[in-house]
This record gives sequence, C-alpha cells and structure tokens, in this order.
Amino acid sequence: MTEINFDKILEDIKPSAAEVEKVKLLSNGLINIIDGLAVENGINAEAMLVGSVAKGTWLSGKAVKDNADIDLLIKFPLTTSLNDLKRCGLFLGEKCIEMVKGYAEKRYASHPYVTGHIDGYDIDFVPCYSIKDARQLKSAVDRTLLHTLYIQNKLKNEKKDEVRLLKKFMESVGTYGSEFKVGGFAGYLCELLILYYGSFQDVLNAAATRWHPHYQIDLEKYGTAELFKEPLVVVDPVDKKRNVAAPLTQQKMSEFMVAAYNFTKNPSQEYFYPKKVEHDLNLIKEEFKKRGTHTVLLIFKPPSIPADAIYPQIKKTENSLVNLSEREDFKVFGSDFWTDEKKKVIILLEFDTWKLPTIKKHSGPFVWSKNHQDKFLNKYKEKAWIENDRWVVGVQRKHEEVQSLIETALTRGKIGYLRFGKHLKNEILKKYEMMDLMEFLESEEVGDDVLGFLYHYLHGSELLWR
Amino acid sequence: MTEINFDKILEDIKPSAAEVEKVKLLSNGLINIIDGLAVENGINAEAMLVGSVAKGTWLSGKAVKDNADIDLLIKFPLTTSLNDLKRCGLFLGEKCIEMVKGYAEKRYASHPYVTGHIDGYDIDFVPCYSIKDARQLKSAVDRTLLHTLYIQNKLKNEKKDEVRLLKKFMESVGTYGSEFKVGGFAGYLCELLILYYGSFQDVLNAAATRWHPHYQIDLEKYGTAELFKEPLVVVDPVDKKRNVAAPLTQQKMSEFMVAAYNFTKNPSQEYFYPKKVEHDLNLIKEEFKKRGTHTVLLIFKPPSIPADAIYPQIKKTENSLVNLSEREDFKVFGSDFWTDEKKKVIILLEFDTWKLPTIKKHSGPFVWSKNHQDKFLNKYKEKAWIENDRWVVGVQRKHEEVQSLIETALTRGKIGYLRFGKHLKNEILKKYEMMDLMEFLESEEVGDDVLGFLYHYLHGSELLWR
Repeated sequence: MTEINFDKILEDIKPSAAEVEKVKLLSNGLINIIDGLAVENGINAEAMLVGSVAKGTWLSGKAVKDNADIDLLIKFPLTTSLNDLKRCGLFLGEKCIEMVKGYAEKRYASHPYVTGHIDGYDIDFVPCYSIKDARQLKSAVDRTLLHTLYIQNKLKNEKKDEVRLLKKFMESVGTYGSEFKVGGFAGYLCELLILYYGSFQDVLNAAATRWHPHYQIDLEKYGTAELFKEPLVVVDPVDKKRNVAAPLTQQKMSEFMVAAYNFTKNPSQEYFYPKKVEHDLNLIKEEFKKRGTHTVLLIFKPPSIPADAIYPQIKKTENSLVNLSEREDFKVFGSDFWTDEKKKVIILLEFDTWKLPTIKKHSGPFVWSKNHQDKFLNKYKEKAWIENDRWVVGVQRKHEEVQSLIETALTRGKIGYLRFGKHLKNEILKKYEMMDLMEFLESEEVGDDVLGFLYHYLHGSELLWR
Repeated sequence: MTEINFDKILEDIKPSAAEVEKVKLLSNGLINIIDGLAVENGINAEAMLVGSVAKGTWLSGKAVKDNADIDLLIKFPLTTSLNDLKRCGLFLGEKCIEMVKGYAEKRYASHPYVTGHIDGYDIDFVPCYSIKDARQLKSAVDRTLLHTLYIQNKLKNEKKDEVRLLKKFMESVGTYGSEFKVGGFAGYLCELLILYYGSFQDVLNAAATRWHPHYQIDLEKYGTAELFKEPLVVVDPVDKKRNVAAPLTQQKMSEFMVAAYNFTKNPSQEYFYPKKVEHDLNLIKEEFKKRGTHTVLLIFKPPSIPADAIYPQIKKTENSLVNLSEREDFKVFGSDFWTDEKKKVIILLEFDTWKLPTIKKHSGPFVWSKNHQDKFLNKYKEKAWIENDRWVVGVQRKHEEVQSLIETALTRGKIGYLRFGKHLKNEILKKYEMMDLMEFLESEEVGDDVLGFLYHYLHGSELLWR
C-alpha cells in the first residue's frame, strides 16, 4: 500500500556510525570511572547503561528531542540500606561528573539522583538496587533495569529501526512522551508495541482499525489486564501488576489512533517530519473574533519547582477554574494552558457565557419536608415560590461576570475553594494578570511560542494530518 | 388551636334561605318542564338535579365563582341508542330553555349538551344513561349521576358546611377547580376529603403534616390505589378504576399543602377571603429590571374554541417554546401564560441566557467508529478536533439571539418543530407579536388583569399566606 521510502527516513533519524561511536565511548568511559571510584572508595556498586541508548532504539541527535540522553544506573546490592544507597550513589555520580569536568544538577524522582551535563549530553546517574525480577522491586527506578534487560533480550536487531520509525511518527504527530506534559507513549511502550505487532506498519494498522477504549495487550500472557482501568492496557512483561500505558491519556491515545488511520489511508513521509504551521497574529485574532466567545487569559510566573511537577499543578488549576466557572453557571467552551516552565504560565479559558443575570434560581427543600421548609422560609419568606414539589427562590448572584468570580477566587481567604498545588497557589497569590485575549493580543509583544499555543488551541487536530 | 369564628365565615359563604328557595324553585320547575316535555313527545327520559346544588354543598352567590351553577341530567334508559340520546337530550334541553325564555348555547364535553342562561344562572342540560353502577358506564357524564347519589347517601347534613369551608379555603389560596386552567381540586374531591377525614380542620391537618407525593386515599378499600401514578390518589368510591384526583397537578397539591401548613400554624379568617394585592406597574417594572434577566412576551389571539380546550394548547405551546430554547442553549429562568380566553393570549418567557456566541460545539463520532468518522471528517475536515475519545467541531450557530430562534420557529414551514394544538398554530401563523417585556410595559395600556398575571408570576406563593 505504501510507496514511502523508509530507508530515506531512517537515514535522517538513525544515529550515524560516528554518533554511535561517540555515545559508546562516552558512556563506557563514565561506567569505568564509576566502577573505579567504587572500588577506590570501598563501595559495593556497579554502573550500567540503560534506556534507549542501551537498547539500541535511540534516535539521532535532534531527530527527537532528548532521546539520545544517556541513562546510567548505579546498582547496589539488595542488602544496602536506602540511606547508604542514596548517599553513595550521589557521591559516585557527582564525583564522576567532576572528574570529566561536567556540570552537576541534583534532581528528584522517587529518590534523588544527579544529572551531569557533559559534552552536550544530559546524563542521569541514578542509584538503584540490583534486582533480578519484579518481586524484588524497592523503587520505581529499579524497574528501568528490568526493562532494559527485557528489551535487550527480546528485541531483535532488525526490529530496532521499526521502533525508531514508530517513535519518530509519534513525535511528529504529538503523541510521543509519557511525561505529564504530553501524556503520550513512552519509549518502552513503543518498543513493546513493536515486539507485539512485529513492525511499524502493523502497529499503525492495529491502532488505525482495531484499537478501542480499554484495548488490552499482554505479551507474557499474565492474564492481569483486567486489573487496569486505563484507556490502553499494556501489561508490563517484567511486572504483571503494572500497566506500561498508565500515563497515556485517552486524548493522546485517540490522537494516535486518528493519525495512524490518516497515515494508513494516505501514507506520506511528511508524517516523519515536523509540520510547518504559520502562526499569524492577525489570523489568530480574526479566528477568535469570529467565534463570538469570550476568552480570558490568566498569566503568572511558574513556581521554582522541577518542570515535571509544574505541569500537573497547572492542569489541576485549569480544571479547577473550569469547574468553578461552570458551578456558577458560566458555560465554558474550552480551556488549555501553556508554559515555558521558567518565566510564564498562561491558562486560557474560553466562555460561551460570561455574563449572567443578577438573580439566580436556588433550589430549596421539598414541600413535605417540614423542618427544612421552616428553615428555608424563615430565611426567604414570601420571596420563595413552589415549582412542582419543591421550594425555589431567586437569590442575588455574587458574581454577574466570570472575571469577577475568578478574581475573587484568587484572593487569599477564598483560594481554598480552588484545588491546585500549593507552590502554584503561592505564586498566584503573589501576582497574576487576568486579561481578555483580545487585549493581550493588542497590547503585548506576543512571542512565537505563545502564538503557536493559540494556533494549536484553535486547530487541535492540526498535527494529525499531512 | 384556632380562634377563628367559622360561623361568621359560613354566614358569608353559605347560601341564604331565600337563595336556597330560589334555586330549588328554579331547578324543580325545570325538572317538571323536562319531564312534561318528555311525556308529551313520547321520549323515555327523566330529569334529575346533580352537582353541588343537589348535594347541598354549594356556595353562596359570588362566594365562589360559578359554584351555584345548576347541573341537570336528562337520563335515558340503557337501551337507548347514543344517537337518540344526543338528539332527544338536546331537543328537551333547548325546548325547555325556550319555554322559560332563557338563552341556549350548545357545548361539547364527551358528547354535546346545552347550557341555558336563565335568571342569571348558567344551567347545564346534559343527556346521560340512567346507570346503577360503574360497570354500566357508557360515557364520562354518566359518572356524575353516581357521584351525586354517593354523596347524597354518605354525606351527613352537618358535614356540608365543612365541605363549604374547604372549598372556600381552596378557592382563596388558588387551588380550587379541576379544570385544566387551574389543575386543582374538584368539588367532588373536596366532598370525599371531608368524608374521609371528618372535618375541614382534619383535612388541613392531614395535608399540612402527613401528605407526601403519591399519597393514597381509598374510602371503599378497593385496593386499587397502586394503579395510579398521579401525585395524589383518591380512588373513586363509585369506580375503583378511576382516580378522582387525576386532574390535580403536583404544583397545586404542593400549594394546598403549604397553605394548609401556614393556616394550621397561624390560623386567620383572612384565608377565606380574597387577598388584596397591589399591582403597581412601576413596581413590577422595577422588579423585573432588578432581576437582570431578559423577558419576552409572545402575544396572539386565542382560537375560537371552547375555553377548556384553549388552556392545554397554550400550555403545550409554552412548554414547546421552553424546550426549543433550551435545546438551542438559551437557558430559561421561568415561563408562564395568561389569557382572557377571548381576545388575547400572552406567553411569558424569562431567560437567563438570551445571546450566545456565533460558534457552537457540536459532538461527533467516537474515534474508533471508522464509518461515522469518515462521514464526519468529509464534512468538517481539519476544522474538527478530538476531545478525549470523540470528535467535536465548532459549527456556526443558526440563531445567536433567542428571539430570532423563536421567530423562525413560528414561521410556516418551521412551525412543525413546535408541538401545539393546530387551532392555536393557525392563529399564531396568522399574526403574533413578540416584545421585550420592558417595551410592552412602556408602550401599552396594560390592563389590571395582565398586571395581576405579572405580579403573580413574580410572587408565586403570594396567595398561600395571610
């Protein structure tokens, strides 16, 4: 069916021999340093390369952002105390980075680790336990070890390019990456899909025509798929109690299914390259105007916490603002957010209804509920009336305009009604701006990244077609 | 508990000896004329007084409007054909009215009858079959005969004033009358309630404290109450397959329960007299303005059909307009209607939302539903986007303002989308006006009856308190 020149695409996305050599030299060098340092300092530990580089499924340079990053585990015997593991692990990582004149940054996942910026690569040095199977799991990072061993053992050499094609396709249509920011497909999940279906084309055929909500894949036939409620279930071959696709949202699963369908119907190599999209300020302005809705931006500085932690907090805030608005009868057409993670968060709220009458209907007790009726009528007297079998009354609405509702909700003392992480709450309490979108587009020097966000908000399926 | 002088109230609502004498003379005279005419013309038929006058539960002159009306049945043997019954019944009625120099008017219920306007009374001459029990029922009017006989047989003389008090109370609080216009309690239902509970005060106590939805009363213990789904069930003592309270709406049942509760908590003879209510144009204008809603009036001429038939058609139209508006996302705060039955119908629609954005979200197929997806995307292409597991698209709203929606719905060709009786539909197609309430209140000489309607709309529980 396809006349696509996959070899040409692979030329663009597969690391060159030189690139492979460079990464191998670097990682082997680091492993030797760590192992040497361990012996020198009497630490019972051993370094091991994991992740896409170790599995041979990584993409060339900038073909997929961050994919060539090197992950090194520093494995400790199971008898090591967690305290010793953390302390010695960090020591070995930091010392190693220092020796190669890299720049070290401490980070936190389930436990602390250190990232070294060395020769243009980001290299994670992650302490873990040297486990043999899932029953010995002590922390989430230990599982990475098992994943690497499983793929190294099962994925034949000729399938590695199939993984690369799938990853690149996913990335181009916007569904690659299991981090919260994306909510898409992890690299390991791509590898498992290739193992299961056999090829890039077969994965796309399945997603295009056979996938449905709660679709189940169980490579090792553990029979535990029913335990999981997520949109896609892929039982982890190294841990039957884990769904590898748990971070995948229904949204991204749907988007991949549609992109796969579009590709299989009308294949094009364009699906493996970034889509060129024009973000014209005036066109965007025109489009929003034509909708006749009312769009408000809430703008504030992100808190100084790791990027991974910022996204869920922003999403929670967005949802909380939508719920608050709808609870007060302001109908929301759509919402979204954007952040550069450092300087600016923008939450966009687009309203069908943003102004409401002064009066609001408030439902009271049933007419046969005498105690409740007495209380209700003591309060509202003859202002109340009956509708069928219950009392209702017209009460003064606290906020006739949604912006006033939100501004009140964002003040100290009221902010408790909203649900979002405390880091972000503190940041908003310090300072935020709320603007009409039109006002924002008129007044500000709007960056291309923000324009891209607004464009994507208006054209949500843009990336699924070529 | 009460210090109410019921004797004083009864003085005002009970017919005087002279009034009783006059009605008796008139009705006996008419019965004699009918019976004489029947013999003379070889018709096997016999007149009988029924209704509240026959049962001795009628109210004085204008104490309750229309209550002193006289109902005469003209009874035919069961062997009479329906055709003969109609023909001879109308002949006897019309001839009798002619003889006493009254004015005859032909009317229709389940079958035709004639009303005579005689000496200031409206007297119905209704042909029926002379049945002995419900199994012989041939038409709804036959049942009236059985009701009269049952009450005459069961209701002791001293209970008749209790019925009068109950009827008058019901009338003053706005819950008396089983016709569609009110949807309240029929006279016969009041009589049965007194038979069941024993006194006015006991009926009020029960309604105030013990009634609840689907409350059941079964005087003759037929055990058929479960057959009925209406808010109040009172099994007809003369027909176990009929619920006497079937025409009672939940609204009017609730209102009576609340009025009864208010009365028992704080009794006052004011509950037996009309409530004086000021309808000030400017206050009404002010109240509507303060609500901040948008109120629209649809004004047209009622069709020339019997009053009883007008009300259900107007109600249906009101409901249909409300449903149409809400289906198109215009949120309705409240609605009501008024008519003088002859010249004018007013349907009032009060909106929370009356203007909406140009764009409207339209839900499409699920992403795994390939055939539907193909059709949808052929139509909407890249304008569509995905929300979770289904396609949505922003489509142009046909009507951004509710008045334009309604005006379109009321044009020939579109009116089929609304559900209401054809008589009324034809009248609206001929001519209607749609006005903002404020415009109406400014521009028109607004009659006191319409002001009263608007006042009651704003103060729905007004009559339930004294």
